[in-house]
Amino acid sequence: MKKSPTPPFITVVIERMTPLLDGGRYPVKRRVGEDLVVEADVFKDGHDVLSVVLQWRREGSKTWAETPMRPLDNDRWTGVCSLYENAVYEYTVQAWGDTFRSWQAEYVKKFDAGLQDLLSEILEGCALVEAAAARARSTPDAVQLFDIAEKIRKGAPAEVRKIACWSELEALMAAWPDRSLATRHEPFGRVRTDRERAACASWYEFFPRSAGGEGDRGSTFRQCLPRVDDAKAMGFDVIYFPPIHPIGISKRKGANNSVTCEPGEPGVPYAIGNRHQGCPNGGGHKDVAPELGTIGDFEWLVAEIHKRGMEVALDFALNCSPDHPFVHDHPEWFYKRPDGTIKYAENPPKKYEDIYPLNFSNPDWRRLWDAMTDIILFWCACGVRIFRVDNPHTKPVAFWEDLIGKVQAQYPDAVFLSEAFTRPKMMRVLAKAGFTQSYTYFTWRNSKHELTEYFTELTRTEMREYFRANLWPNTPDILPTFLQHGGRPAFLIRAMLAATLSPLWGIYSGFELCENDAMPGREEYWQSEKYQFKARDWNAPGNIKEFITRLNTARRDNRALHEYANLNFQHAESDHVLCYSRSTPARDNLLFAVVNLDPFHTHTAHVHVPLEEFGLGGEDTYQVHDLISDERFLWQGRRNYVELDPHSCPAHLFRIRRWVGREQDLDAFQ
Amino acid sequence: MKKSPTPPFITVVIERMTPLLDGGRYPVKRRVGEDLVVEADVFKDGHDVLSVVLQWRREGSKTWAETPMRPLDNDRWTGVCSLYENAVYEYTVQAWGDTFRSWQAEYVKKFDAGLQDLLSEILEGCALVEAAAARARSTPDAVQLFDIAEKIRKGAPAEVRKIACWSELEALMAAWPDRSLATRHEPFGRVRTDRERAACASWYEFFPRSAGGEGDRGSTFRQCLPRVDDAKAMGFDVIYFPPIHPIGISKRKGANNSVTCEPGEPGVPYAIGNRHQGCPNGGGHKDVAPELGTIGDFEWLVAEIHKRGMEVALDFALNCSPDHPFVHDHPEWFYKRPDGTIKYAENPPKKYEDIYPLNFSNPDWRRLWDAMTDIILFWCACGVRIFRVDNPHTKPVAFWEDLIGKVQAQYPDAVFLSEAFTRPKMMRVLAKAGFTQSYTYFTWRNSKHELTEYFTELTRTEMREYFRANLWPNTPDILPTFLQHGGRPAFLIRAMLAATLSPLWGIYSGFELCENDAMPGREEYWQSEKYQFKARDWNAPGNIKEFITRLNTARRDNRALHEYANLNFQHAESDHVLCYSRSTPARDNLLFAVVNLDPFHTHTAHVHVPLEEFGLGGEDTYQVHDLISDERFLWQGRRNYVELDPHSCPAHLFRIRRWVGREQDLDAFQ
Repeated sequence: MKKSPTPPFITVVIERMTPLLDGGRYPVKRRVGEDLVVEADVFKDGHDVLSVVLQWRREGSKTWAETPMRPLDNDRWTGVCSLYENAVYEYTVQAWGDTFRSWQAEYVKKFDAGLQDLLSEILEGCALVEAAAARARSTPDAVQLFDIAEKIRKGAPAEVRKIACWSELEALMAAWPDRSLATRHEPFGRVRTDRERAACASWYEFFPRSAGGEGDRGSTFRQCLPRVDDAKAMGFDVIYFPPIHPIGISKRKGANNSVTCEPGEPGVPYAIGNRHQGCPNGGGHKDVAPELGTIGDFEWLVAEIHKRGMEVALDFALNCSPDHPFVHDHPEWFYKRPDGTIKYAENPPKKYEDIYPLNFSNPDWRRLWDAMTDIILFWCACGVRIFRVDNPHTKPVAFWEDLIGKVQAQYPDAVFLSEAFTRPKMMRVLAKAGFTQSYTYFTWRNSKHELTEYFTELTRTEMREYFRANLWPNTPDILPTFLQHGGRPAFLIRAMLAATLSPLWGIYSGFELCENDAMPGREEYWQSEKYQFKARDWNAPGNIKEFITRLNTARRDNRALHEYANLNFQHAESDHVLCYSRSTPARDNLLFAVVNLDPFHTHTAHVHVPLEEFGLGGEDTYQVHDLISDERFLWQGRRNYVELDPHSCPAHLFRIRRWVGREQDLDAFQ
Repeated sequence: MKKSPTPPFITVVIERMTPLLDGGRYPVKRRVGEDLVVEADVFKDGHDVLSVVLQWRREGSKTWAETPMRPLDNDRWTGVCSLYENAVYEYTVQAWGDTFRSWQAEYVKKFDAGLQDLLSEILEGCALVEAAAARARSTPDAVQLFDIAEKIRKGAPAEVRKIACWSELEALMAAWPDRSLATRHEPFGRVRTDRERAACASWYEFFPRSAGGEGDRGSTFRQCLPRVDDAKAMGFDVIYFPPIHPIGISKRKGANNSVTCEPGEPGVPYAIGNRHQGCPNGGGHKDVAPELGTIGDFEWLVAEIHKRGMEVALDFALNCSPDHPFVHDHPEWFYKRPDGTIKYAENPPKKYEDIYPLNFSNPDWRRLWDAMTDIILFWCACGVRIFRVDNPHTKPVAFWEDLIGKVQAQYPDAVFLSEAFTRPKMMRVLAKAGFTQSYTYFTWRNSKHELTEYFTELTRTEMREYFRANLWPNTPDILPTFLQHGGRPAFLIRAMLAATLSPLWGIYSGFELCENDAMPGREEYWQSEKYQFKARDWNAPGNIKEFITRLNTARRDNRALHEYANLNFQHAESDHVLCYSRSTPARDNLLFAVVNLDPFHTHTAHVHVPLEEFGLGGEDTYQVHDLISDERFLWQGRRNYVELDPHSCPAHLFRIRRWVGREQDLDAFQ
């Protein structure tokens, strides 16, 4: 008989492998070192015992690592692997009918049923062990397997029953399985493992020209360190700069977004120019505004920030002012009118004459796309690894997939934050296509119902696999109504929520000063520093820097706040009080947050502590340690009372400490 | 500027296309003429107006048919097509940014906002229409489009606004769209459209040798017509025969599954032999048992059944007795012992020495698989198109996918019923891999809770797309406890449920006689005709043939009972009363079923009529016409009273007739 070939058909049905994003089209996201739990439906015809393994490898590698999977209920199997490199991996499930374990099960059944003539069965077992020995070739295992085969051949039925179930034989047979009829799930799953700060960070955004806080002139890169040090003191670890590039001259806008610009007005950093002002690098996106300094100055600032254990995030805003070098060098990259002139941006009837939008589908699109990638690579070479992308939803999703893929192939530690405030499905697909983190609707979710519903969607649906919410209570473009009217308590509430509902949050500077002057009837800042110099006292009375510092300290010290999908809403007997818990899988870090969502009034509530999640018995006494006020209370059982005055402090962030000492030693809470 | 090529990137995001089974791996199922509704998330960057179409074609064809899709909420689009051939189709969604409609929307916005200088916009519109004219080449449309372009070029802004929105221009532009930047969803969806009887049929199973109902000898094919005519009179349209092939001699089993067989015992038709008994075709699966007649006799019987507007279903049981010709001709297709002998079937400690199982993964598997396909093709050539497959779950799923695919490539009207009573995921994947219909757990679902839960799974989950439940209250292998103990009322109840919960149902003969003698403690028949001749009076007193006839008549006359997923459970104020409705999409056939599930006691209940589904107002009076008893009642409003005595009739099958005449004319219900 000819040697059995691997049959080109699927011998084992492997279905519903999870996670699997759009059939493997997009990778799911994990942090380096984080577990990846994979499940699948696995079954086959007949009564064979199945062997099922989870396999994974770095994309591009030919060798699979593997670990056994175990059966759950109803033909569902589960396995887990840990991924330690900042890379893209692929994973799959492989399964086969295990001839040895099938033989073992059948032999035991027959022997135990008292069947006498087992000679044929014994010879079958012997042949299976010999075949494994042959696969083991010249290893020591082969010798041992041949030995055992011989014992089976000569053994009495009762002795063979013992040998068949000998754990050492089981291990040897598992080490040299016959996979000639194995099936592997396709498509493979993909997972991108990002570094820690891609998943857990506190961002502080400021305009370099505003660092000095003077109303009549801007500061430079070299003057930014006090602001950086202040942010560091508040516990932030990412410093995010709006665009630092030369600002367009043509059609430059004035204060409060005026279409006319007075002499000396600094312009909007989002209108990127200009090739005329003697910019050291010729202007455009690979240059810095001369009023901020030189690229050398910027690199110095980056290095200083790195010295402090922090990182820099740059804004990537694909806006070209009419004097951007692309307009001169690549007019074919823009939209044109019938008369051959380049179109400015419009949202009829509004005109944005200071901006020329790029046409990402123009016939020369490939060169345009590559030029965009080159911009990011340029700043990576300057030491930047984090990019906040402005309005990605107005460019093709395929473009971002291309750009982020190419950048991360060279810089796997590059992080991209999607600033897409648009329709939900577009926000999601940008995250699937490569964005590491995303802005969210959090900025406008204030009520208990809104917050619960939205964060349930973020952390309980498939979104948890690929969409990392970076929560911002404000941005230079958005001063929400809640902050405009709620006063200082509103800022405390929103800081608490942003800092504890996700491992990623950020504020736009001025938030810590409770700045809330708005354009009338708009959710925009009055006298926004986007358009002008801004005078500020960075330590103005009434600031909430101390509160923010405590939040960031709690975030740093509590691993439960470093995870994303561990958010569990808990019952509070008041519509104004939001309650949620976060725990580590090992239950060694347990947090319980209580927030009064009403910035105007004190509210009281009985809140329900999730005793099961915290590993507490129904009558246990435990300590709740407020990481904001540093107060400690003894609570007992599920239902406990809170009272929160928004004018002093609208939130508790309790660390739960279970009692571990003797009764007379009340401090013995871990 | 060079001509714009089709860019090799995805310009429009098209996601979550439904239905899509396992990423297009398997086809969904529809009936010929049935609508296929396709939905997808479709969106793109920026503000372009989208054009989205549903496209479909027969698998293998290069030309797509298409129909526009329309937007639902939140970037979801929907479209519908009707498929008229008994074939496999593929379908997908194509979308593109519609330059003309985007221009139209922007032009109208600007004009209505009072913008004065619209010359550039007018020239753009003109260019778009000229481009469409160029695409229309030498058609009359081209002439008309060039005309309109000229009018736009010369038009005043107000006139151009009118032309831009002229419906004729819209139609012309839609007929000649610019799809150079169109994206098509991949993978494509697949749909198999089956003929009517694949989705809606009433099966009657009998052993040809039992047609005469005599205890000492079997009947032949030529003696089967009275049984066929009786089944036809009861309203059945598929006659299903257990295996008709030569029965093995070696290890033949006797009455009540005895391992010893007395001389003259007819043997089990599921142990297929034999090449020794002078079988005309050499025995095996392409032959008929000589005691039933010749292949010619069988073909005569098939023709007679076809003349009656009915069809034949054959059993495909891949069991070989030791004297099957394969054992002699292809010993390598079977499992072997170390001593070279062929293994019989076992389920330790039980032995089935009359059956040799085939090894579908043997090195010569390709020839074995093809031989199996040849068997089906042989019977197709004899006029058979329906195959009930015995125990498909003990053979590889890939084998069935291969076999059914090859058979249906030649005979698209071939129908396969999966007799897999096994774990749920295996039952499902067999349906996905090609089986047209499937046996179900219905046979053991008796309580209101069980029935509601199971049929909700069948008709409300993704299973509705591919799994067609064929409901059997009994089979030659299964006499459920409910029938054993519930007497005649139990048979009425199960017939009612099977006939009205799915468009596919069947009974194994003897059911209509309420036969319920079981092996003690088993769900099997005592003195089963599987093993022996069986004496029967086919019109024995107490039979329920009249009841079955009324059910099948109601099924024939009511299109609401021809559909599968239109089942809606309704509230009945009793745990013993099950209530459900079925309606056609046009609401021109409305059925309301009420069943007392307790075979022992009368139950009363208020039942809730789904007025909305039936298009009735809250106070409307309507007629309910019981298609079983032929009684008519006037009901009003939602809540109505029923009383069901299982000993007379445990069910109502109401056709709802809305009043359409004047008040004095009480018969005017449609």
